Amino acid sequence: MKSISLLGATGSIGIQTLDVIREHPDTFSLFAMGFGENIGKAIPIIKEFSPKIVVVGNDNTKRELQDYFPRLEVIAGKEGLVTISTADETDLVVNAVMGSVGLQATLQAIEHRKQVALANKETLVTAGHLVMEKAKQHGVRLLPVDSEHSAIFQCLNGENEKQLNRLILTASGGSFRDKTREDLIGVTREDALKHPNWNMGAKITIDSATMMNKGLEVIEAHWLFGVPYDRIDVIMHKESVIHSMVEFDDNSVIAQLGTPDMRVPIQYALNYPDRLELSGTKRLDLIEIGKLHFSEMDQERFPCLRMAYEAGKEGGTMTTVLNAANEAAVQLFLQGQISFLQIEELIKKALDAHQSIKQPDLQTILEVDRQTRSQVLSYLD
Amino acid sequence: MKSISLLGATGSIGIQTLDVIREHPDTFSLFAMGFGENIGKAIPIIKEFSPKIVVVGNDNTKRELQDYFPRLEVIAGKEGLVTISTADETDLVVNAVMGSVGLQATLQAIEHRKQVALANKETLVTAGHLVMEKAKQHGVRLLPVDSEHSAIFQCLNGENEKQLNRLILTASGGSFRDKTREDLIGVTREDALKHPNWNMGAKITIDSATMMNKGLEVIEAHWLFGVPYDRIDVIMHKESVIHSMVEFDDNSVIAQLGTPDMRVPIQYALNYPDRLELSGTKRLDLIEIGKLHFSEMDQERFPCLRMAYEAGKEGGTMTTVLNAANEAAVQLFLQGQISFLQIEELIKKALDAHQSIKQPDLQTILEVDRQTRSQVLSYLD
Repeated sequence: MKSISLLGATGSIGIQTLDVIREHPDTFSLFAMGFGENIGKAIPIIKEFSPKIVVVGNDNTKRELQDYFPRLEVIAGKEGLVTISTADETDLVVNAVMGSVGLQATLQAIEHRKQVALANKETLVTAGHLVMEKAKQHGVRLLPVDSEHSAIFQCLNGENEKQLNRLILTASGGSFRDKTREDLIGVTREDALKHPNWNMGAKITIDSATMMNKGLEVIEAHWLFGVPYDRIDVIMHKESVIHSMVEFDDNSVIAQLGTPDMRVPIQYALNYPDRLELSGTKRLDLIEIGKLHFSEMDQERFPCLRMAYEAGKEGGTMTTVLNAANEAAVQLFLQGQISFLQIEELIKKALDAHQSIKQPDLQTILEVDRQTRSQVLSYLD
Repeated sequence: MKSISLLGATGSIGIQTLDVIREHPDTFSLFAMGFGENIGKAIPIIKEFSPKIVVVGNDNTKRELQDYFPRLEVIAGKEGLVTISTADETDLVVNAVMGSVGLQATLQAIEHRKQVALANKETLVTAGHLVMEKAKQHGVRLLPVDSEHSAIFQCLNGENEKQLNRLILTASGGSFRDKTREDLIGVTREDALKHPNWNMGAKITIDSATMMNKGLEVIEAHWLFGVPYDRIDVIMHKESVIHSMVEFDDNSVIAQLGTPDMRVPIQYALNYPDRLELSGTKRLDLIEIGKLHFSEMDQERFPCLRMAYEAGKEGGTMTTVLNAANEAAVQLFLQGQISFLQIEELIKKALDAHQSIKQPDLQTILEVDRQTRSQVLSYLD
């Protein structure tokens, strides 16, 4: 029985992680969970899974929750995420919180030699060198939950990573794939939230539309698999059937394919290296799909992808700025304060203004992250 | 340094195996080789690779060869294939002879615990139960060379085979993919020899056109990977970019892709489990290819595939008959003695006339093989 601490329980990945735990009650149990403020979603989860500790975003939420569950241990604030990620009872931490708030929990979980299933890509984007160094030091293998990284992880199964030549990430193109840059001028929040293939949270759906999501994935792949940027390709594949590929030194390419069901990468991470049955879902039917399409990724059309490659190659705190500026800008867009194209403008402005600090420590990263967010807000004045 | 005995050195797979040995002189050496009668192709090979023993098809060829190389050890007859497959100096046997003549050499190589790279699919089709039983008994893992089986073998890398749900073999459709059965009435030997994707020997190219090649591959896959026939699918994929796929219990599908270059599966088998660099070739470029197509395999259009499934499920000597009748019929077609559609008619006749013998021993298999060939010839009278 694997005892799990789930950070981000009420989000899209959190809910699907709970589906996996529910389907395999002899294999997994929920020891603890964290969420922000969505108490309406959290209450039935707590009732069903009876976690021992619940971490919430603030004192208000804590009080409300304590009214419902007077005997439950509730902690307010992000330090609580570290507490449940390092508790003796925790075997595996699923880090599915949004944004860089997940970073400290990941680092502490690694220090405590916990298994870490990572759905929080900002952890690696903002502080990849720290995380991977610590993982190496403590002999912890990070288990990716993102479908693309899980695909690569599956393709590397049993392979000698020295013979890895190239990673090929596929991109669906997001909700605005077929629009020109002209077309993007008038698009709304609602247009952007309609992803063609995957049903995900709002932030990641916007990131898919700007292609920043793929950019963050490139940086994440760089750290997770130790591959230089010029050996990470992104290709447009609108059906999202091939989730990603690995090319080896012998020109052989291994790919992972599937229907768009996040439970597959989640349970792969939770139960690695063994696969678990997945019942009640449609198998991949290539005959029904008929055709798979591939085309070049136009970095002029999708400048966020280009900025991500550039920030990644620059390194240091540049990717911290990329991520923080993106988080701030997407939030402004979701709040209706800026237009879609302004997302990339604000990110560009923040990157241009920043002088990268090499090999930053955690304190520096957190400081640059904070500064960048307030700077992006200041651009609106 | 791995010392190799190569059976079928002058054939298509043999020549490409020699390419691999030539490219990696520090990794492989040619200890011995066998060929039939093609002395013109054999002489430069012997000059270049200096094998210690050469096995040839008959005494005439032996005499001719001995004139060229008076000090070379030359053996005539298929017993010679057993000699070089079991010699102390041999580390790995590449069995790339055509037809069931390769069977005894495979069995003996396994008994002598040699690594066996198997390009001779008839070995498994005609006597899969004997070969796999012996391989299990002596702890020998057979290394597939066929591109489809190598693909599956690569996809199973690091996986728990208990979690394998389904094999999906892809078929290009061969030279007559887009023809109706009506269209096939008038096709010639030359038409049949034009394969759209792969440049291969004559027999296998005809087998691709009749789809018997895929049928033989289904039976081979059944034995190599221990998967029942109802969990082996064949789908039409005209680009032959995905060489085959494995579906696991969690609905995840792993695929192997590549350009049509047989050196990839050959060197994978020769150097398993490590991959070797492949230089001077084109990498797979999915953007250039643009689209991959998949469609259902019509077993009415391709009755040889249906017959192969039926013979496989029936088991016993039925697949021996399938293979021997096919070899005989294809030879008659290549000699211009029967029409293309008569190939499947003769096979059907031979299968219909046969009462399967269960769990046949080697003697029975060889006897049924011999009888079937002469029976097919008798149908012409």
